[in-house]
Amino acid sequence: MNVFVIGIGLIGGSFAKDIKRLRQDVTIYGIDTNESHLDQAQALNLIDVKSDHSELNKADMVMVSIPVNALVSELPRILDAVHDDCIVFDGGSTKKLICRTLENHPKRRNFLACHPIAGTEFSGPSAAINGLYDGKTNIICEVEKTAFKLQEKALQLFKDMGMRIRYMNAEAHDKHIAYVSHLSHISSFMLGKTVIEKEKNERDIFDMAGSGFESTVRLAKSSPAMWTPIFEQNKDNVVETLEEYIQNLKEFKALLEQGDYEGIYKAMNDTNKIKGILNGIPLNKKYK
Amino acid sequence: MNVFVIGIGLIGGSFAKDIKRLRQDVTIYGIDTNESHLDQAQALNLIDVKSDHSELNKADMVMVSIPVNALVSELPRILDAVHDDCIVFDGGSTKKLICRTLENHPKRRNFLACHPIAGTEFSGPSAAINGLYDGKTNIICEVEKTAFKLQEKALQLFKDMGMRIRYMNAEAHDKHIAYVSHLSHISSFMLGKTVIEKEKNERDIFDMAGSGFESTVRLAKSSPAMWTPIFEQNKDNVVETLEEYIQNLKEFKALLEQGDYEGIYKAMNDTNKIKGILNGIPLNKKYK
Repeated sequence: MNVFVIGIGLIGGSFAKDIKRLRQDVTIYGIDTNESHLDQAQALNLIDVKSDHSELNKADMVMVSIPVNALVSELPRILDAVHDDCIVFDGGSTKKLICRTLENHPKRRNFLACHPIAGTEFSGPSAAINGLYDGKTNIICEVEKTAFKLQEKALQLFKDMGMRIRYMNAEAHDKHIAYVSHLSHISSFMLGKTVIEKEKNERDIFDMAGSGFESTVRLAKSSPAMWTPIFEQNKDNVVETLEEYIQNLKEFKALLEQGDYEGIYKAMNDTNKIKGILNGIPLNKKYK
Repeated sequence: MNVFVIGIGLIGGSFAKDIKRLRQDVTIYGIDTNESHLDQAQALNLIDVKSDHSELNKADMVMVSIPVNALVSELPRILDAVHDDCIVFDGGSTKKLICRTLENHPKRRNFLACHPIAGTEFSGPSAAINGLYDGKTNIICEVEKTAFKLQEKALQLFKDMGMRIRYMNAEAHDKHIAYVSHLSHISSFMLGKTVIEKEKNERDIFDMAGSGFESTVRLAKSSPAMWTPIFEQNKDNVVETLEEYIQNLKEFKALLEQGDYEGIYKAMNDTNKIKGILNGIPLNKKYK
């Protein structure tokens, strides 16, 4: 089987590692606009062959893990190039615009819209790790638009990788993910910004920051090139989450200014139930 | 040596574990208003003896790890009870009010104002872990007010526990810690609140949340009983950090609404330098 991974960083590279382990007789072809990433990916044995779009007709499976703006421009070209039995899927953090873009593509049935909820704050081929997807959720949108035989091929692989599958429409995906993923990134980036602006002496941050700060600000290490187009494509939902988040912060500040410590206690106590909600999330392996 | 630990939860219990490992001929006495915590602490071998205030005259060292409002009311009584060669220190996350409260206490020289920057989101005796303090910073305020011989006794122990010592005045401590610790907790609690309010179906949070959300919302599991009095005592500084944080969030939202994606990229890219700042922070052992 010829598998093409387009965009060979954390997401694509970790995918390549899993597929090499789980499938026999696979050749992994890598495509990337960054030539040095392609060299690194080969040196790290993530890919077998450095390739380009001209070879896509050989592909039996294509995983596309590039920023979401590039997905919108590249996916139509990729689908144009592949043969009729090839399955193409993406890993983008937005789904609505991607699905809409491909809506009337003659090879729409060769595409499966995916969002594996997995990652770390690192990027590039050297960030690829074994088992990144094990126990994680893969959200699949508009599954009915993909040819059944091709769905099966991808779904079997995802299951072998240890992923749980959840089906959703693209609009609902973008709305929910704004809360549980996109907002976290902004809250973390703005926390980092606030502290950096205030603490001109970086030594003070270093000396006084505890594991709590480190954990809360972890996502502020994420790639702006990846996240800017996500916020652009999911603008309306993200603006809504930000309004609600800012409102909650203002209310907390008002309680504090009024000296309403019962109110502050209650706000925190009510939120403690996140503990129970998260308890089952199989993500504790995240720092491997 | 008789060591008393008053408040035998995560902080006091982890301290007891270290001191048992590092010192010979030590008896650990536990005092706690929560009788079942005291029983647990004994069952877990964190303490040797269940005790109360009437025995404090036996103490050579007292570690007080109780909520900061209780520190203000209890520390004067504790100092009243100890003998002249006993060193008493706390672990409170605020320092100004505590130092001011003890300013004119006849046994002020027996007290060392400490803030070991260490912890997890868990609490109670069962949360106590080995080596919690290893590689962490202990901020000491108004060190000149503590008798030199007693300072030495505490500082040697902190160094043996692997802590780095940093001296600071109490006002500066409270100001800086508002940014690098207190604000992180509020940003995390309000993130949890925003998501819980929106996602009435907890299964959606569970299914769609990734390690990024889990990391950013981790501090929302913290104890409201511990954190409410911290915010109360550090109200002015915390309100200031919240104003700046809200302002940064509003500016980010405005950039998004205006479609200024270069501005969004820049805000994130500038904040990426938190990576370098945190790199040296020896906190990666936080989940042990």
